Amino acid sequence: MGNLLLKNGEVLLPNGSVQQLDIVIENNVIMALGHAPLNWQGEVIDCTGKLAIPGFINTHTHAAMTLFRSYADDMLLMDWLKKKIWPAEAKLTGEDVYWGSLLAIAEMLKSGTTAFADMYFFMDDVARAVAETGIRASLARGMAGVAPTGEQALLESESFYTQFNGAADGRISVMLGPHAPYTCPPAYLRKVVAMSEKLGAEVHIHLSETAGEVEDCLKEHGKTPIALMEEVGLLQRGVLAAHCVHVTPDDIQLMAARKVRVAHNPGSNMKLASGIAPVEDMLKAGLCVGLGTDGASSNNNLDMMEELRLAALLQKVNRYDPLVIPAGTAIAMATENGARCLGFEKTGKIEAGYRADITLINMNEPHWYPRHDCSSLLVYAAQGRDVDTVLVDGRILMKNRQLTTIDEERLAHEVQKRAMRLVKQ
Amino acid sequence: MGNLLLKNGEVLLPNGSVQQLDIVIENNVIMALGHAPLNWQGEVIDCTGKLAIPGFINTHTHAAMTLFRSYADDMLLMDWLKKKIWPAEAKLTGEDVYWGSLLAIAEMLKSGTTAFADMYFFMDDVARAVAETGIRASLARGMAGVAPTGEQALLESESFYTQFNGAADGRISVMLGPHAPYTCPPAYLRKVVAMSEKLGAEVHIHLSETAGEVEDCLKEHGKTPIALMEEVGLLQRGVLAAHCVHVTPDDIQLMAARKVRVAHNPGSNMKLASGIAPVEDMLKAGLCVGLGTDGASSNNNLDMMEELRLAALLQKVNRYDPLVIPAGTAIAMATENGARCLGFEKTGKIEAGYRADITLINMNEPHWYPRHDCSSLLVYAAQGRDVDTVLVDGRILMKNRQLTTIDEERLAHEVQKRAMRLVKQ
Repeated sequence: MGNLLLKNGEVLLPNGSVQQLDIVIENNVIMALGHAPLNWQGEVIDCTGKLAIPGFINTHTHAAMTLFRSYADDMLLMDWLKKKIWPAEAKLTGEDVYWGSLLAIAEMLKSGTTAFADMYFFMDDVARAVAETGIRASLARGMAGVAPTGEQALLESESFYTQFNGAADGRISVMLGPHAPYTCPPAYLRKVVAMSEKLGAEVHIHLSETAGEVEDCLKEHGKTPIALMEEVGLLQRGVLAAHCVHVTPDDIQLMAARKVRVAHNPGSNMKLASGIAPVEDMLKAGLCVGLGTDGASSNNNLDMMEELRLAALLQKVNRYDPLVIPAGTAIAMATENGARCLGFEKTGKIEAGYRADITLINMNEPHWYPRHDCSSLLVYAAQGRDVDTVLVDGRILMKNRQLTTIDEERLAHEVQKRAMRLVKQ
Repeated sequence: MGNLLLKNGEVLLPNGSVQQLDIVIENNVIMALGHAPLNWQGEVIDCTGKLAIPGFINTHTHAAMTLFRSYADDMLLMDWLKKKIWPAEAKLTGEDVYWGSLLAIAEMLKSGTTAFADMYFFMDDVARAVAETGIRASLARGMAGVAPTGEQALLESESFYTQFNGAADGRISVMLGPHAPYTCPPAYLRKVVAMSEKLGAEVHIHLSETAGEVEDCLKEHGKTPIALMEEVGLLQRGVLAAHCVHVTPDDIQLMAARKVRVAHNPGSNMKLASGIAPVEDMLKAGLCVGLGTDGASSNNNLDMMEELRLAALLQKVNRYDPLVIPAGTAIAMATENGARCLGFEKTGKIEAGYRADITLINMNEPHWYPRHDCSSLLVYAAQGRDVDTVLVDGRILMKNRQLTTIDEERLAHEVQKRAMRLVKQ
């Protein structure tokens, strides 16, 4: 860290306009936008022909599941879980989770993501990968009340929060991660609520992902998952809710009243055939909706550039309306809304006083020509691999597509070896 | 051209399996798969760590509309056409269309596409771009019977067919291109049918793209667009039908009986909010369905890797069934089905005796790890920019992402300058 000048780039500003500006960074903060001081002493990155945008924020993933990427596709959900994923996950070690998370972080950085929200297990090892690589993250130890490890997960969540919330110079924050209403009965969720109150921790949870889940919840509890969460006192705790595909107008009103933030995962919802979330309705109700990739075994990548596009395209075709989720809205969902989803302050915009989490995109490929509108090009034409350089907290984590904190060659070797061991029958 | 050996690549075979094999190419044909002859004399490309697939075939585009990429997005269709696209198109010269087509070809090659079906105007200039660059194409002069140029377009179509069908060493073939039933009245279409009979030319047309188009056709003619095409004798002529979003079960039966080939354009259908085509039903009825990007001003790129993924994801979520359009089906649509759509023989597979139209994909990025299943990775994780090397007719048109027949720097300069002139008000 120190002083860094991003010179002469096309900068995407919070109002959606794109202007050629210099960005002055001191330590981890954007100090000024405009023209560089004549007597500039620090490091300079020439950004001519590059688009500078706030780093993408991936609001929902299970990072280490990269290890199962392409292992079990085009399957029914329960076949996929029971025959493939659960048996393989049972063999995971902390070291596997570390390497799987490192692979996820490498992929996210290389497609312009500077922060992510994770829910998995062996979270100390995920935190180690985050700390070493320099990315930003909100981490949650996944808890399933119905599992034999349910009580242990509560204990681990508390100690993980105590040890890691605010760690890595503040780049790591911690949430509690009850998996979902169908794996966490009300009595268990009430324990999570109590812990949340005690620690002051917010909650990351899967809600209303599939129609079947909502049906079952109505049968068992006479309430939708959202209404059930209100009843157990969870919605009042500050919630990041993943999916919210099958939510009713009443659910949406309740979520708005409780300021629930939503992680919308269009790629995963499409691939698993979960359904199409009422994103336009949620935004109209004033909800903060961010974008996520979900795990790489149900997506199958962690490329936010793709989620950006899917978010815009899927709502248009679903509503028969080409005006919904225009480019600017999709970008806001992937950046500033993402920061709010994760509870990060002064993050997700290129503006003086904001954290210097910045992605530089190379616009030299044919699909970036001609340049009538850079925001449109970003949402409707760009690719993850167009990302050239990535900064988190003012530190360069990738430059000219070379990662500075990860040895990619060793990474490829390790994950391939570990993945083959995990799926061996 | 000459002898070329693709050594040691992972080869995607017609049965969907991936095997490490050498590919022996002589002139424009794949001669053998297996181990290279010990005494090999020709050129060698080391394909270690690369996936060799049949080049993608883009079954529907308007190539030169790249000039309007990002010019007018998130708009209603008629506003888009009347206020933006038509006024700008009115200023197009043949030279503009040449440069716009060149940009499209550069983009297509750089994302692994080796052939495309085009419908536009100034087609001599499109043919010039195809001939110079070495790509393969099926070209059609777009004809709108309701336009003042309707009769002239018929004349131009005939002379274009006579002059260019089979040109550029057989890489160019020509179809007749009546735009759509709503721009070509039955009397005009009957002239197209007569010309098709006289020349032996097949037909490329837009059919049943929007619900409004079908409604209007039912009102005016008492028939769906598909049934109307049967009545005027067009379906019997060999038809490549773009879109087919709003087709009935009866339409599909009729299309199957007439062996209509379908260009499915999921990206464009989503962005323009046209609807979701019943692809699964069409495939079940035995129709040949290929994939297309449509023009870059309604997509906004010409990246077949994206269409591949959208084709799979969109059908799954629409049917609430994760089993429809599995990876292998999506790949077949983008390759061998595409070849059948365009009437290309011995094209679209990596098999001895087939044309050497091959795309080599670099699998070194994090999103290609681990490698449980290369077909799944291709459909659900890959990006257009992963394409490394492209051959058409055994000739190397891109190597290590360097185009061999196009000067990208000059191209960028030309298209930017021309695009700005076209949209100036």
